[in-house]
Amino acid sequence: MTTEHFPLSGELGDDGRHRLVQRVYYEDTDFSGRVYHARYLHFLERGRTDYLRCLGVEQGALAGSDDAIVFVVGRMEIDFKGPAVMDDIVTIQTHTSEAAGARLTIEQEIRVGEKLLIAAKVSVVAISSSGRPRRLPADLAARFLAH
Amino acid sequence: MTTEHFPLSGELGDDGRHRLVQRVYYEDTDFSGRVYHARYLHFLERGRTDYLRCLGVEQGALAGSDDAIVFVVGRMEIDFKGPAVMDDIVTIQTHTSEAAGARLTIEQEIRVGEKLLIAAKVSVVAISSSGRPRRLPADLAARFLAH
Amino acid sequence: MTTEHFPLSGELGDDGRHRLVQRVYYEDTDFSGRVYHARYLHFLERGRTDYLRCLGVEQGALAGSDDAIVFVVGRMEIDFKGPAVMDDIVTIQTHTSEAAGARLTIEQEIRVGEKLLIAAKVSVVAISSSGRPRRLPADLAARFLAH
Amino acid sequence: MTTEHFPLSGELGDDGRHRLVQRVYYEDTDFSGRVYHARYLHFLERGRTDYLRCLGVEQGALAGSDDAIVFVVGRMEIDFKGPAVMDDIVTIQTHTSEAAGARLTIEQEIRVGEKLLIAAKVSVVAISSSGRPRRLPADLAARFLAH
Repeated sequence: MTTEHFPLSGELGDDGRHRLVQRVYYEDTDFSGRVYHARYLHFLERGRTDYLRCLGVEQGALAGSDDAIVFVVGRMEIDFKGPAVMDDIVTIQTHTSEAAGARLTIEQEIRVGEKLLIAAKVSVVAISSSGRPRRLPADLAARFLAH
Repeated sequence: MTTEHFPLSGELGDDGRHRLVQRVYYEDTDFSGRVYHARYLHFLERGRTDYLRCLGVEQGALAGSDDAIVFVVGRMEIDFKGPAVMDDIVTIQTHTSEAAGARLTIEQEIRVGEKLLIAAKVSVVAISSSGRPRRLPADLAARFLAH
Repeated sequence: MTTEHFPLSGELGDDGRHRLVQRVYYEDTDFSGRVYHARYLHFLERGRTDYLRCLGVEQGALAGSDDAIVFVVGRMEIDFKGPAVMDDIVTIQTHTSEAAGARLTIEQEIRVGEKLLIAAKVSVVAISSSGRPRRLPADLAARFLAH
Repeated sequence: MTTEHFPLSGELGDDGRHRLVQRVYYEDTDFSGRVYHARYLHFLERGRTDYLRCLGVEQGALAGSDDAIVFVVGRMEIDFKGPAVMDDIVTIQTHTSEAAGARLTIEQEIRVGEKLLIAAKVSVVAISSSGRPRRLPADLAARFLAH
């Protein structure tokens, strides 16, 4: 029985890197016995969402405000370096390498223990309620790069 | 190679039963080698959506109208009688057995060939934009039971 | 920022009830703004998996052993009483109400705070590697009912 | 009501390009009102699976044979150029641009009508039952590039 405790929303380190621990369940696997490739994007998105939460950015609140911002993924480059399997405990690490205009470059890794399974570079675009790219407010951009 | 053609939104028979043909893909399976149990609900929901479409009810349009209606699932009883596996072709059959007030009782089956895999009884509630149950307009209710 | 810590695999109480805390992410929602109905089955399955884990039953190991057991869902009755939304923290509660032969009856609830969203009764069948129902070993059955 | 018929497994054109038509359902959307970004990978994977099927490669059969081959995704580059929404009809186009050793480079697009939503470059690796990369048999490699 695993009794280890983890922060629900992960932890933001002094190095600006956010780490979130998640479990691999049935839903994540496919008949090959490994995690279905698209499911890693779910883990990555959970990591980004909780990274934003730890930075003080609640996406639900932002989307509902008058001056709405929604973050959408513009481009992803993903290297699948090894498989996770049922019952694995994965750590998703997230940090921002660039913030300019409406665009953030977020780099992410998924590991089981020390073993690197996934390396991803995610280009995220902030869009307004009209669906157009929207320059990040300076204080928000600063939060992504502060460390 | 399968070259058989199917109507994208399925077909509504004279018996009031809608039939939709779908393929089982990687995404639907889990490490047991069978279809992940919750995925059958996706197939059932595709069946209900296209059943509504064939009845002339576009959920996207209804949800966006002034007098919005969204259909939400209130209760499901699902018997899992046998597994589907990768590459299977499933047929989802849908019909309404009762329509009263804001509530529809929809009965559904999933088969591979003649073999019954899933039998489901789905209680669907029409809700308004305020989130409250909303009596089905008489013409809409009539459409569900006409056959 | 949420800094509360939770046990990754949930906790099994002295009352025989297992509780697992999970977050609602983007992936769980649909365009209605609520959690997609089939996703609650994922939360329920995570609850059952970690309940088994806390009882000392590793499904991955069981499935791979010579005397393999896989648990499959035979029937579900699910009442959808209220919606969860993006960013919600849900608690999944799981306990066994009956264990007889190859069959377990597992009762589950999903709540946000005190509010009950989902009540489910899940009939689970133990099957052997041949795909046939397989009587639960007495020590395993006893573990499900011990409290 | 849509009555148009489509081949269940899509069609392989004389130009070596495979086209598969699929519907966007509730399950594919998220609370932003658009298709959840990871769901496009499901559509892409359905496209690749049916492309293989049209080339005469049944993944389920290959995985189960003595001389097993499973195709796993090694790297993806995905540009998200525009959103699909509920009820959209998408066309997934797939072709192989390179086949060398154990590796295929597959290029894919998702469109709604003429509008390009997704452009993806997928590096697929053939692996044997031992989990090691496995050179594609010459006749199989030839099938991917024949057009």
